[in-house]
Amino acid sequence: MTRTVYVNGEYLPEDQATVSIFDRSFLMADGVYEVTSVLGGKLIDFPGHMARLERSLVELDMNKPEAFDDLLEIHRKLVELNGIDEGLIYLQVSRGSAGDRDFAFPDTEVVKPTLVLFTQSKPGLADNPAARKGIKIISIEDIRWGRRDVKTTQLLYPSMGKMMAKKAGADDAWMVEDGFVTEGTSNNAYIVKGNKIITRQLSNDILHGITRAAVLRFAREAQMDVEERSFTIDEAKEADEAFVTSASTFVMPVVEIDGETIGEGTPGPKALRLREIYLDESRKAAV
Amino acid sequence: MTRTVYVNGEYLPEDQATVSIFDRSFLMADGVYEVTSVLGGKLIDFPGHMARLERSLVELDMNKPEAFDDLLEIHRKLVELNGIDEGLIYLQVSRGSAGDRDFAFPDTEVVKPTLVLFTQSKPGLADNPAARKGIKIISIEDIRWGRRDVKTTQLLYPSMGKMMAKKAGADDAWMVEDGFVTEGTSNNAYIVKGNKIITRQLSNDILHGITRAAVLRFAREAQMDVEERSFTIDEAKEADEAFVTSASTFVMPVVEIDGETIGEGTPGPKALRLREIYLDESRKAAV
Repeated sequence: MTRTVYVNGEYLPEDQATVSIFDRSFLMADGVYEVTSVLGGKLIDFPGHMARLERSLVELDMNKPEAFDDLLEIHRKLVELNGIDEGLIYLQVSRGSAGDRDFAFPDTEVVKPTLVLFTQSKPGLADNPAARKGIKIISIEDIRWGRRDVKTTQLLYPSMGKMMAKKAGADDAWMVEDGFVTEGTSNNAYIVKGNKIITRQLSNDILHGITRAAVLRFAREAQMDVEERSFTIDEAKEADEAFVTSASTFVMPVVEIDGETIGEGTPGPKALRLREIYLDESRKAAV
Repeated sequence: MTRTVYVNGEYLPEDQATVSIFDRSFLMADGVYEVTSVLGGKLIDFPGHMARLERSLVELDMNKPEAFDDLLEIHRKLVELNGIDEGLIYLQVSRGSAGDRDFAFPDTEVVKPTLVLFTQSKPGLADNPAARKGIKIISIEDIRWGRRDVKTTQLLYPSMGKMMAKKAGADDAWMVEDGFVTEGTSNNAYIVKGNKIITRQLSNDILHGITRAAVLRFAREAQMDVEERSFTIDEAKEADEAFVTSASTFVMPVVEIDGETIGEGTPGPKALRLREIYLDESRKAAV
């Protein structure tokens, strides 16, 4: 089936969906994005993703796309048109195309942002077998730019990180800066010690995960202690459990770091419990 | 006049030149580029730009575009079709479009790189009045990723830097990391003390400028001393001269840094002499 995607107000077959070669996301990574999960045909954490999108736009002095207030409707229409039961919706706002290349931002009166959305059908997303087995990660140096709190399309290094992991026979990578874990290539990173859930504090160094915020809230509600602080790979290797969170993997247990087994080498009870709570609560709140 | 641009083997009117929304340069800044100057209808430092392009591709495990060996011919054809006497030719290679979004690199047997080229006519490029007046720069923190030697399209921060400069009433910005100048937003940075031309040594921290290499060679040939080492903004403020080099500005004198006048506040003799030599020699070697 050919997907129907959204580009600047039009619903198009995916193979006809294009942007100008002068689009600033193409030429200079001048774009921000969000990925929202769909479960049971409904949107998970939608308001959180839209709030973060708005923050990303503000941080980059980028105008809202004209259809900003219609984004819920557009998401829903894409779910419907593509018959998505479980999957993802990807959204990108680019600063747009001025019809030429220039480092300077174009006049916002003339150049409108580019808005692109498309679905990715992922049957079995919630019942992902990887969550029952856990994933293996390696550690790599974090050499990304300094504003990782802004969800830009500058994803070359995370992409390279996934390839490094693949080459090493692992599933993903955690990035390390000045000796401390920042985050995963496309997820936030956590360790568990006793009743404590430890994850890096928010700053410009990491993405302010929408799933992260929800999971920490659910952890506190479930009487777990939450400690927001930096940790090292060595500390992670000694932890009882480890896991990552993201919009597309929810809560995903980590069972191996740099070849060393974490805990029993199977998904930890706290990670599995948080995954269960997150999925239950998110389904209830889905729109 | 509508420009004719090049996209994957086709010469197209610029307003019909598009790439898929799934192109990896659009979605994740997975692309590299080069900018070659045109003077008198001929290409400046062309072999250098193509050698660096090849290096960028190798560093990112990206395949050469199919038309790699035809790039000189494509550049020349675009110059001819668009009647470019003085200007620039922009070239970008993207890892291509797998028809969907995935952090992992696509199978290179299936997904071919995207190749895009377009011209920018700039009459008066060589006789730029800015070179007679000199430019004003500010210093900003360098928060880019760690592989600036690879010429990727991750240009959001340089773009933001140009805007910071504009806001401050300046023309451009030099970036500073750990107290030392790395480079300009789209050029290499130099200071002059007596007979000494000082510019940062090559590493992953800066772009290995094609114009930089040529200018340093010409400086040595002109009996100037060349010192490749890091310098601070304070040292730059005390210098006799300052300048930047790039493919599009050649050698451009800097007359003010963070509001402080450099030397006499006019373009320095060494910068102007190097500009003259560079333009003369490059025209002779143009293809």
